[in-house]
Amino acid sequence: MAFKYTVERILEIVGETAEYAGAYEGKITGISSLKEAAGGDLSFLGNPKYRSDVDVSEASVLLLPKDFVGAPKDGQLHIKLENPSFALALICRDMENTLQPKPEPGVHPSAVVDPTAVVSPLASIGPLCVIGKGAVIGAAVLEAQVSVGRYAKIADDAYLFPRVVVADYCEVGPRNRLQAGCIIGSDGYGYEYYEGAHQRVPQIGKVVTAEDVDIGANTTIDRARFGSTYIGAGTKIDNQVQIAHNVRIGQHCLIVAQVGISGSTTLGDGVVVAGQAGIAGHLQIGSGAMIAGGTAVTSSLEPKVKVRGYPAEPMMLFNRISILQRKLPELFKRFDQLEKTVESLNK
Amino acid sequence: MAFKYTVERILEIVGETAEYAGAYEGKITGISSLKEAAGGDLSFLGNPKYRSDVDVSEASVLLLPKDFVGAPKDGQLHIKLENPSFALALICRDMENTLQPKPEPGVHPSAVVDPTAVVSPLASIGPLCVIGKGAVIGAAVLEAQVSVGRYAKIADDAYLFPRVVVADYCEVGPRNRLQAGCIIGSDGYGYEYYEGAHQRVPQIGKVVTAEDVDIGANTTIDRARFGSTYIGAGTKIDNQVQIAHNVRIGQHCLIVAQVGISGSTTLGDGVVVAGQAGIAGHLQIGSGAMIAGGTAVTSSLEPKVKVRGYPAEPMMLFNRISILQRKLPELFKRFDQLEKTVESLNK
Amino acid sequence: MAFKYTVERILEIVGETAEYAGAYEGKITGISSLKEAAGGDLSFLGNPKYRSDVDVSEASVLLLPKDFVGAPKDGQLHIKLENPSFALALICRDMENTLQPKPEPGVHPSAVVDPTAVVSPLASIGPLCVIGKGAVIGAAVLEAQVSVGRYAKIADDAYLFPRVVVADYCEVGPRNRLQAGCIIGSDGYGYEYYEGAHQRVPQIGKVVTAEDVDIGANTTIDRARFGSTYIGAGTKIDNQVQIAHNVRIGQHCLIVAQVGISGSTTLGDGVVVAGQAGIAGHLQIGSGAMIAGGTAVTSSLEPKVKVRGYPAEPMMLFNRISILQRKLPELFKRFDQLEKTVESLNK
Repeated sequence: MAFKYTVERILEIVGETAEYAGAYEGKITGISSLKEAAGGDLSFLGNPKYRSDVDVSEASVLLLPKDFVGAPKDGQLHIKLENPSFALALICRDMENTLQPKPEPGVHPSAVVDPTAVVSPLASIGPLCVIGKGAVIGAAVLEAQVSVGRYAKIADDAYLFPRVVVADYCEVGPRNRLQAGCIIGSDGYGYEYYEGAHQRVPQIGKVVTAEDVDIGANTTIDRARFGSTYIGAGTKIDNQVQIAHNVRIGQHCLIVAQVGISGSTTLGDGVVVAGQAGIAGHLQIGSGAMIAGGTAVTSSLEPKVKVRGYPAEPMMLFNRISILQRKLPELFKRFDQLEKTVESLNK
Repeated sequence: MAFKYTVERILEIVGETAEYAGAYEGKITGISSLKEAAGGDLSFLGNPKYRSDVDVSEASVLLLPKDFVGAPKDGQLHIKLENPSFALALICRDMENTLQPKPEPGVHPSAVVDPTAVVSPLASIGPLCVIGKGAVIGAAVLEAQVSVGRYAKIADDAYLFPRVVVADYCEVGPRNRLQAGCIIGSDGYGYEYYEGAHQRVPQIGKVVTAEDVDIGANTTIDRARFGSTYIGAGTKIDNQVQIAHNVRIGQHCLIVAQVGISGSTTLGDGVVVAGQAGIAGHLQIGSGAMIAGGTAVTSSLEPKVKVRGYPAEPMMLFNRISILQRKLPELFKRFDQLEKTVESLNK
Repeated sequence: MAFKYTVERILEIVGETAEYAGAYEGKITGISSLKEAAGGDLSFLGNPKYRSDVDVSEASVLLLPKDFVGAPKDGQLHIKLENPSFALALICRDMENTLQPKPEPGVHPSAVVDPTAVVSPLASIGPLCVIGKGAVIGAAVLEAQVSVGRYAKIADDAYLFPRVVVADYCEVGPRNRLQAGCIIGSDGYGYEYYEGAHQRVPQIGKVVTAEDVDIGANTTIDRARFGSTYIGAGTKIDNQVQIAHNVRIGQHCLIVAQVGISGSTTLGDGVVVAGQAGIAGHLQIGSGAMIAGGTAVTSSLEPKVKVRGYPAEPMMLFNRISILQRKLPELFKRFDQLEKTVESLNK
């Protein structure tokens, strides 16, 4: 990382109730795990099981729990506080703001903004963005080459990375964070077979995302046939996820990379869908359900169930089946043997 | 949806043989299912099993079958006709044209068009598009930020959404509809291991799509090693599909989201590949074959077969195996018991 | 393909030790397999098992092995040499250079280059590219609409196809080839559940690729939480692959389309991961391991093992289980029968 960070700044952020031992005079030039750290690095003890790594760590500044017993090496600073992991997150957030400062408000002269669009004076519109007719942009950041369609809306404090597409009529909620290349509002995949060909069913709905939604790189979310495809507040979607038309996702769900959710399926709140899982169309997934990676869900799920497999089975059953499958070759042999024994008895 | 639509317009579209009962004086402001509809909404009875929903529907205008028996509420208009679903599709298409009108012909001043490119005067080239050397653009629509490579061809009435890439030498057929972010003509993935490293095999072919092909958002189709990767007429491809070099797909196939088709595989006509399925390379998939979601196809398929599973099995066999797998824990127990019984008999 | 290629040029490339028979007077207008070739085509016998195809081939120029016995038809040229496949690759590379010549150095006037960026005079920056603050661009080619973030680095002889994104601070190595739409440096997917919501963990690391890395269309590689997500020298990544934060991939690996690799997993050298496979987080995959298509890897793998399945099993065991699964319906029947027999014996 191309940054230099001061010990003073760290103490400003985490300092209030912290205790110190030792000293480090230089700048912080990196962050690393205890074992991998070199001189200049900040490191931390987040989990007591790595306690012994502290003794061998070359890190210059270490965040340690209050009850840590041990002395710093020469030129090393120990900072002891309630929650080293949380302290690290605060420091990282501050570093992030330094590394990727929020661009200044204003419209880059190379952006193409339709005269009927309404752009907040607090918005930052990056180079080569395109803002369509009647679009409404709040106090948001649009990095380079973002495309916003006709009558689309981007709420305050949304952050759109380069090359995001928000298509016609779609609405992005407050504090959403849209990674590069994601596409909000592609056409739903709907056809009727008629006169020897697949006739396209018009997709005239939109996509609406609530507040605090994150959407990953190159993820695609289709507009509804009519009405809205909807993503609930606080839901976090990873890269390369596909969400079909008229899907409705509840609040605070986690949808991990390369998941596919088919048309008109509904997810409750707090659902976790791990990587590469697929969910068929027109299903109801209850709140708090957990779907393991690669699972193929083909029927609705009750709240809080855990499933895994192709097709999905209750997690415990799947794990049992997996173990028994490995014993199939042996079972078939034992069975052949048993049949012979019984045959001889039966003579 | 930000639109107001008149009852008169609906009657113009579906009116000829329709019968009416009741009246609605306002504008249509949405479309919804019978149950979810509110005042101002258009709704429809497409399936007789939802008959009872009509009685409770708050929709202002209802499309109903000719044989429907029942009276409209106050301020509600019933329109009775042969095929309510088809009527709705016609209305939706008209609304779509209103919501997303075809842009006017012309080249946006911010587009970068190579002087050797040939662009039809009927083409609409959106803001910040790039058209390469020797490219030929028919009476097509290119929305914002589309990239067309050297000597590529876009046929009449193709519609390219924002940020589509059509790479060098590739040819997009008439009436194709390419969703945002799809990439036509990335390099095929071909290497030869030689002198301790993977040497790239040049990919000098192209991609050709026939007429009426739809391609989904962020889908990728690789150019051929030499010759063409080919997509047949009327085939509809969903989002995030990967089609490798030298694949040939027949007419009127449906390729659902996140499917992967490996190099040099051929699909006949009318093949259906459901979401997240994968097909290995150099296979022949017969016309009319159906491949279930998540299936891994590792050998060629006869026409009209239905397969499912990892690896693919005939659908009926897969379903049978799935049920029996759930009984494996019980089978192993029964088997242990039986072995003991036989042992005691055998003493 | 829109090219005409001369026999003289072919002889220049492969001629030194070649022997000739027959003659072809025209231009080369295509390349095809022996069976599919038409007049004007170049073809080749790469595998002895296709020997008989030579006799029926309509190709005008044929590359054949030294020990080939047989005479050309009228108007056909036979070129006999050590390694016809390798000769073809050389010819294809030359054709590729003709078809897609490297753009001239220079910055297109429509590109938006931050004044603090350092761009080599040998770099070619295409139309509508965006180069961020402090970025460093070597003697590389950036085709249209590429986005390079703040302080990112692109090394010499890298080739970036249209619409590639290299995000802030990321580093692309020498001779890398990045296909259209790939995204280097999206945020890692990291959250901590805290006070009723998923709190984003700042992702302040970067992505670093070594020399000779290829990355496919619409592939996404996330930046590290801190430190680097790393791709080793000579590794070739296909389309729509997802690589999560802090993954480290060794040298000369092959990662085929639609693979997903979860956070902090490490791959050794020469690992092959076939299409649509998934690897869970925090695992160690040994050098030379081979992971079959669609496999779900949920635990670390020793070097050189071959695995397949959901979940992954040793390849031989998986194949054995697959065969036995098909016999489950029969096994259950046999078992019921055997139970009855034993029961009758036990009376």
